[in-house]
Amino acid sequence: MPAQAEALRARYGAAAAPPPGPWNDVIATLLAHRSVRAYRPDPLPPGTLESLIAAAQSAATSSNLQTWSVVAVTDPARKARLATLAARQAHIEQCPLFLVWVADVSRLDRVGAATGTEMAVTPFLETFLVAAIDAALAAQNAVIAAESLGLSTVYIGALRNQPEAVAAELELPPSAMGVFGLCIGYADPAVPAEVKPRLAPNAVLHHERYDAGADAAARAAYDQEMMAFSERNGLGPESWTDRVIKRAGRIRALGGRDRLVAQLRSLGFPLR
Amino acid sequence: MPAQAEALRARYGAAAAPPPGPWNDVIATLLAHRSVRAYRPDPLPPGTLESLIAAAQSAATSSNLQTWSVVAVTDPARKARLATLAARQAHIEQCPLFLVWVADVSRLDRVGAATGTEMAVTPFLETFLVAAIDAALAAQNAVIAAESLGLSTVYIGALRNQPEAVAAELELPPSAMGVFGLCIGYADPAVPAEVKPRLAPNAVLHHERYDAGADAAARAAYDQEMMAFSERNGLGPESWTDRVIKRAGRIRALGGRDRLVAQLRSLGFPLR
Repeated sequence: MPAQAEALRARYGAAAAPPPGPWNDVIATLLAHRSVRAYRPDPLPPGTLESLIAAAQSAATSSNLQTWSVVAVTDPARKARLATLAARQAHIEQCPLFLVWVADVSRLDRVGAATGTEMAVTPFLETFLVAAIDAALAAQNAVIAAESLGLSTVYIGALRNQPEAVAAELELPPSAMGVFGLCIGYADPAVPAEVKPRLAPNAVLHHERYDAGADAAARAAYDQEMMAFSERNGLGPESWTDRVIKRAGRIRALGGRDRLVAQLRSLGFPLR
Repeated sequence: MPAQAEALRARYGAAAAPPPGPWNDVIATLLAHRSVRAYRPDPLPPGTLESLIAAAQSAATSSNLQTWSVVAVTDPARKARLATLAARQAHIEQCPLFLVWVADVSRLDRVGAATGTEMAVTPFLETFLVAAIDAALAAQNAVIAAESLGLSTVYIGALRNQPEAVAAELELPPSAMGVFGLCIGYADPAVPAEVKPRLAPNAVLHHERYDAGADAAARAAYDQEMMAFSERNGLGPESWTDRVIKRAGRIRALGGRDRLVAQLRSLGFPLR
């Protein structure tokens, strides 16, 4: 099978894969993404972090405000403490480079302090949202750059379980919050990680107007696909519907993130 | 000058460019990003949208919940109405494909309805944040794919100026919000768009702990860089500090987004 058809089949399963469209090596890199949760200890080649950051800074940023920062953590003791704060995920300790992506409005506050300007927009939810989206766009560029270099990654949303403790660990200033972590390193070849199938394109792509008409059939087919994926990967039979109910059906699955509003306020985001 | 050194110099200016690290064609594509606000009317080649969506769906998504959707808009009348809602940006009408990226928790609600499960996590700010970040990671993959195919893009944050009207236009269900737009098309070669320099890496990259020590010097140097950039691009002399004060120093610059909390609540996000 040609590489493109094979990549689409891995991403959607045989039944839902769309017909091949325009294609190139960059798109092949994007399609090949898989999250990796087992790493070799090998450090990254010199200059790698700087290349990832140049890629990250090249992403679009709202009004060029650049409301994000990143803290690169390689110290084993600090990685271990961060792992403890993020649901004890062992890959945080294992990976040679752990990046904490920060929604960072403090830089604007410093411009305000230096110029005697009140930064009127900083108390609003909108400003926190811009910062979180800026951080996500930047981080995704770093992920693509890393994967293009043969490295693997996994995002760590559990970094939001205890954002005040993370801020204290990293000495973040007020108006800065670690929105997610990112493990980077060489995948442990002893622990295979398969490309995970997604919902069929017609479940997420709408034309002109939102139309949930394809949803039920797409979910039924995807449940079968994910059941087979889970079994193949030794996770037991779990459909997507099972997964959604497990993650979205109980507040406990938020790992403490049901307290996010109060925690963000204490970190200097009034969320007005 | 070799391509890599030139790309780093365009991104950071001559003084702040880091030494060349690992490099390849994917990283070159990432570094070459520039936002384009003038488009030729030419439509995209057949299958392009599907390739962009396959790239988008290949991005990581929190707990595989896939809490995003995208509405592809090509109808000129609808694009014109969306442009009116988004600060009358002419490129929304001009580009052949306008994508509205949706933070979409409604799909989880439908799983809940179909299975008789209360989706306990959906009222929380955390869940909206996950959906917005999922949408951003997906959109950035689509941007990279588009640029790798010779297309240009620009994100439209002003789509959040009137989110209820956007939701009505696109017939979004409750628990879904258009978080940003994205223009895609061929750049009008008559309107040059230069790569925009960013803050020096040491202003955003921290090692082990956050350290704002490099901030003031980086900002002073960047002000010079952006002043020259603005002049070169016919925008008049505007430093980054000027820009920050203009965008973050007045609530009016939010274009109505100071009402985001109330609007999200009315769209079905309680933000608890």
